[in-house]
Amino acid sequence: MYKLNWSGKWLKIKGKYEVIFKMKIASVLPLKGELQEKLAKMTGAKVVTEASVAELAQAEIILGWDEKVSEVLSGENKIKWLQAWSAGVDNFPLAELAQKEIYLTTASGANAPGIAQQVLGYLLNFARKLHVSYDLQRAHQWEIPAGIMELTERKLLIVGTGSIGQSLAQLAQAFGMKVYGVNTYGHHVMNFNDCYAITELETVLPEADFVVNALPLTPHTKHTFSKHQFSAMSDKAYYISVGRGQTTDTSALETALKEGMIAGAALDVFEEEPLSKDSTLWDLPNILITAHTAGQTNFYAERIIDSFLLNFQYYQQGLAPAKNLVNYDLGY
Amino acid sequence: MYKLNWSGKWLKIKGKYEVIFKMKIASVLPLKGELQEKLAKMTGAKVVTEASVAELAQAEIILGWDEKVSEVLSGENKIKWLQAWSAGVDNFPLAELAQKEIYLTTASGANAPGIAQQVLGYLLNFARKLHVSYDLQRAHQWEIPAGIMELTERKLLIVGTGSIGQSLAQLAQAFGMKVYGVNTYGHHVMNFNDCYAITELETVLPEADFVVNALPLTPHTKHTFSKHQFSAMSDKAYYISVGRGQTTDTSALETALKEGMIAGAALDVFEEEPLSKDSTLWDLPNILITAHTAGQTNFYAERIIDSFLLNFQYYQQGLAPAKNLVNYDLGY
Repeated sequence: MYKLNWSGKWLKIKGKYEVIFKMKIASVLPLKGELQEKLAKMTGAKVVTEASVAELAQAEIILGWDEKVSEVLSGENKIKWLQAWSAGVDNFPLAELAQKEIYLTTASGANAPGIAQQVLGYLLNFARKLHVSYDLQRAHQWEIPAGIMELTERKLLIVGTGSIGQSLAQLAQAFGMKVYGVNTYGHHVMNFNDCYAITELETVLPEADFVVNALPLTPHTKHTFSKHQFSAMSDKAYYISVGRGQTTDTSALETALKEGMIAGAALDVFEEEPLSKDSTLWDLPNILITAHTAGQTNFYAERIIDSFLLNFQYYQQGLAPAKNLVNYDLGY
Repeated sequence: MYKLNWSGKWLKIKGKYEVIFKMKIASVLPLKGELQEKLAKMTGAKVVTEASVAELAQAEIILGWDEKVSEVLSGENKIKWLQAWSAGVDNFPLAELAQKEIYLTTASGANAPGIAQQVLGYLLNFARKLHVSYDLQRAHQWEIPAGIMELTERKLLIVGTGSIGQSLAQLAQAFGMKVYGVNTYGHHVMNFNDCYAITELETVLPEADFVVNALPLTPHTKHTFSKHQFSAMSDKAYYISVGRGQTTDTSALETALKEGMIAGAALDVFEEEPLSKDSTLWDLPNILITAHTAGQTNFYAERIIDSFLLNFQYYQQGLAPAKNLVNYDLGY
């Protein structure tokens, strides 16, 4: 049985009184009452929200990340597990956490269904020309835009087969799309018709009608989409970027759009955010720009807590959390 | 065995020569070569496309409808079956066809997947505020619109559970929506969580986050959505109209949008089409207008021919076509 370590209470066990310490979980963020209760009930721990530095220093598990946590981490503390509130952890002190042997689990997947839905929104705008109809509406013009199609049987290439890619693949299958994935080794993933290794990217790009970049940012993924990749794409294909801005070479994309090397793009993430008012991207032909909105979801906290509670069942038994655990060697 | 009636050829059958007449199928429209071949091969009939009046008068089955067919119908002809090229048949001389006992099958379902996809496009624009982001993009403004949500667990009420409703229900389920249907008798339909009778419409409307009108136009459906129905809807709910324009009372909808009785609307069909340049609808708050584009699909002819060929297997045996056969009493 796992040793509980804080805020003890006396309990009669086998005829003797023993001090049972209660684990402390501290959340940086506020949590809805019902979620806080669920967390306390299912872990048996004392749950503190909007925790102070002192409270964070006493906690074994911390939910969320800010400067306070960073401060606590460098001093004396009891931290064994950090549950990040973001999917990407490229801004975390990974080397320090690795050295201190602290588990770091991400919120990966918590906003994946929302991102996948937003990507379908972009795809449907492009396929059904809804953004073109919106322009026509503004001009009071009754006109059927050219080139309206169904997503049915169109080829979707998802680069990055993590939780976003998987959610997206599942939705795209419902539309009758042919769904292909690209990941590190080309291993097969559910809901994909086929998967290819990242080394094969340029070979599979020409076939795709829609290319979705859902890559994490790692030392290996910077500018994965650059001049060569856009050249390899069909000039009837659309590029959608919802992973991390730095995985796209913005100036190469700009050239590709201007020169008609690809049919259009939807971008939710950028090399520099916020996108400056005088960026030339805003007015490129056939571009849809959203202000890093794809991850917005009304289910975020619920899904992180559910993922955390799954992991807690292992942690409680002295095992490492398994879901969304950061591999410090890979950096994600 | 069905009697074939045109363009005979001699065939040796059981040692004797017999005249085998070849049925004639005439299409009003041009057909892609491969579809024409498929049709000829699978029916054994002679297939004429872009048929003249004389050719139409000789045909037992006519694909499509125009003034020529109307002319042929009123004179001497061999027509037994009309395969419409549209889903709605409210513009056909139904009484005349009923009286002449001519089968009329519709193209219902041929554009249903495309319409369903376009409806998902509207829903995702509303849920993910993509149209709001598009306005912000035009203003070079980096801003996360308020109220972005997932479709997950939202309640979708589809009024009309025909082929459009069914395609839509299937897609919506993939998004984790709760899908309810309204049809004449409230009979259950696949992919709907529950179905209600049209008499219960006003009782179920208040619960819906999205209401999709996919009704056919019949003597019973005119202005199904009028003042009372919009009042019954939640002020956070969206109305989407993709069936027939006349099933919506436009002026009541306009009032509902102006007074904030509903959150927004997407309209693809209108009481008067084309929508005039000076219509007040174009600039209503939170409205998306498309120029009857939802039915646009790159699979239209293929799906009609497939449906026709399914029916042909029955017809060939002297039975009535079953799929999409118009019931002249109901008018659809």
